[in-house]
Amino acid sequence: MSENHPAVPSGGHPLDWLDIREKERVAAGLRRRLRPRPADEPGVLDLAGNDYLGLARDPRVLAAASAAVRTWGAGSTGSRLVTGSTELHADLEAELAAHVEAEAALVFSSGYVANLGAVTALVGRGDLVVSDAINHASIVDACRLSRARVAITPHCDVDAIAEVLANRSEERALVVVDAVFSVDGDLAPLADLAAVVRQHGAVLLVDEAHGLGVVGAGGRGAVHAAGLAGADHVLQTVTLSKAMGSQGGAVVGPRRVIDHLVDTARTFIFDTGLAPVSVAAALESLRILRERPSLADEVRMRARQLADGARALGLNATEPSGAVASVLIGAPEAAFQASVRCAEAGVRVGCFRPPSVPDGVSRLRLAARADLTDADVSRALDVLAEAIQGI
Amino acid sequence: MSENHPAVPSGGHPLDWLDIREKERVAAGLRRRLRPRPADEPGVLDLAGNDYLGLARDPRVLAAASAAVRTWGAGSTGSRLVTGSTELHADLEAELAAHVEAEAALVFSSGYVANLGAVTALVGRGDLVVSDAINHASIVDACRLSRARVAITPHCDVDAIAEVLANRSEERALVVVDAVFSVDGDLAPLADLAAVVRQHGAVLLVDEAHGLGVVGAGGRGAVHAAGLAGADHVLQTVTLSKAMGSQGGAVVGPRRVIDHLVDTARTFIFDTGLAPVSVAAALESLRILRERPSLADEVRMRARQLADGARALGLNATEPSGAVASVLIGAPEAAFQASVRCAEAGVRVGCFRPPSVPDGVSRLRLAARADLTDADVSRALDVLAEAIQGI
Repeated sequence: MSENHPAVPSGGHPLDWLDIREKERVAAGLRRRLRPRPADEPGVLDLAGNDYLGLARDPRVLAAASAAVRTWGAGSTGSRLVTGSTELHADLEAELAAHVEAEAALVFSSGYVANLGAVTALVGRGDLVVSDAINHASIVDACRLSRARVAITPHCDVDAIAEVLANRSEERALVVVDAVFSVDGDLAPLADLAAVVRQHGAVLLVDEAHGLGVVGAGGRGAVHAAGLAGADHVLQTVTLSKAMGSQGGAVVGPRRVIDHLVDTARTFIFDTGLAPVSVAAALESLRILRERPSLADEVRMRARQLADGARALGLNATEPSGAVASVLIGAPEAAFQASVRCAEAGVRVGCFRPPSVPDGVSRLRLAARADLTDADVSRALDVLAEAIQGI
Repeated sequence: MSENHPAVPSGGHPLDWLDIREKERVAAGLRRRLRPRPADEPGVLDLAGNDYLGLARDPRVLAAASAAVRTWGAGSTGSRLVTGSTELHADLEAELAAHVEAEAALVFSSGYVANLGAVTALVGRGDLVVSDAINHASIVDACRLSRARVAITPHCDVDAIAEVLANRSEERALVVVDAVFSVDGDLAPLADLAAVVRQHGAVLLVDEAHGLGVVGAGGRGAVHAAGLAGADHVLQTVTLSKAMGSQGGAVVGPRRVIDHLVDTARTFIFDTGLAPVSVAAALESLRILRERPSLADEVRMRARQLADGARALGLNATEPSGAVASVLIGAPEAAFQASVRCAEAGVRVGCFRPPSVPDGVSRLRLAARADLTDADVSRALDVLAEAIQGI
């Protein structure tokens, strides 16, 4: 080997470093295992999933999905601009836009790639993107991928965002924020944020992954609840895999933004269109929500009951503004142990450890559903009380 | 406004630049329109989609999909490490790995995010990633997102790759290549490439999006066909939305790579798991392929018939190594016009224009399917002959 590449391993396998990293994660309690679940889990109460409205197994949703399989086949067969756009996609896009009172919508294969596509199509080299410190990984990746200058601002700090916007040298700027933050379930200050963004000639992208179907009147989302429906400098990404009980994502906003994404968003153009069956399921869920707007109130009520109950146990729980009650535990191992005990007692809860959250603030995440009963909530709190004994 | 931000617009809307860009695309003939298709298109022969084995509407696949909807619901309800892994996911991962004779597999929600997840988990700042000049957009984005040094090498140039690897200062290096290139359907020189990569202490990632189900004995893919099955420095990404007729993607390779992805791949950890219905459809397609390995031979034969027929018409067609026959037309407008004429005559073909291909080499893309008949091929060629008259 020449002096030009002194660091090339001279005998070891080029993947041996994976074993070293794995040992480090095992030592840190961060080794993850997939635990595939069976279809039927009698007696299990699930508070870990994101099926916030309980629609993933709704009979109407299942019937719409099965009909779509028969009518359209198993896949969309191509990218959206070739064979992957069906009339179902167009219907869902129209009804999603109508629901949140925006001009237009565009369906992607996931909320993750919807964020990647929207951000990279709106800012690039020479532009600025401002991102909240605890935004979802898909937004972090979207900012990185855009090659714009990325300014990370402290969590929900509107003044810090205003300062970054005011002091920028770039003409174009995009501010990106989760509507409801996934770990703690807290709400972004969208009305103030939108005003600041407008004042500084920028654009606001709000990720409604945990807002659609949950927050605001009839689950129209946090942007709508903040009085920003139809605002011409605001766009939203939504996911179809949480409250809509299906799979996929979408961007919703001004028509000219959507047209621009059709022409330029790489994760739209170069990805296979969402499977018609997933489009159909999301569409039926949306129709159910529009017929029963109280579903959104119900899931929020159940989340508050879980948080109030956790606090009554002496735990540090967030005040839920959406479907999620977050219970601080502390050390990663303790949080993991508590979640295992809950699971052993038949209550499945989420456990957030590094790298999902910073070290020392590991927590349990209890996701409510609109179809929880009083008995479910009581049972969950009883199990939680047992699980935290001695932790 | 201070001198610090002279470029901030002083009155215009921050999205007005979108209208300027749109006018530019309209002038360049690059404005795209979504054309949602109906469920039934009597008389239409589709040579544009990627349902290479004709399994997207196979009765067994549809039955498996419908059963999965009933059994599992419409969505996976969460990320793979929380509630989004079902026993179906585990079955598909085991059977995919067995099919290509690798140690393990991991299902992602798309091939796009499988590439993003694999590349960013294997290389980062201070590492090197080497990418073929015409790799798919998802690989280009994956390289960008990784923050590794990206070296772009001329198309299928193994010597250039060897030179970059030999002259690198980085210890860790990953070479990424499409197995079958999507536009022309040509094959990467995988055997030579894998030898060079091994010699230089690097790792090879092969995107089998157009290889799985199509290339090699029984559709085991180009890596298997090159004698590289189970090679400990080679991994593959596959898509479930082309030959498998469904949706989703996967990474297949050495067990320690898959374990590493479970722990660290952001698009795996932070994305909702693939819907069980899509998992079930892909699994049934894979089982059909394993029962009828000749399906892979049939689609390649049909692609060769289309290419041979196009050449008999005096056209410049590639020699297909997979499912795609690419027919060079030249000017973007001429290619587009030819594709429109084909569509009007009931034969849907793909049309590649800038920016998908360089200027002056626009082409038609004819994707074969295993279930094409002799009559289909004759009809396609008759329509093509008419469509190119005077172009």
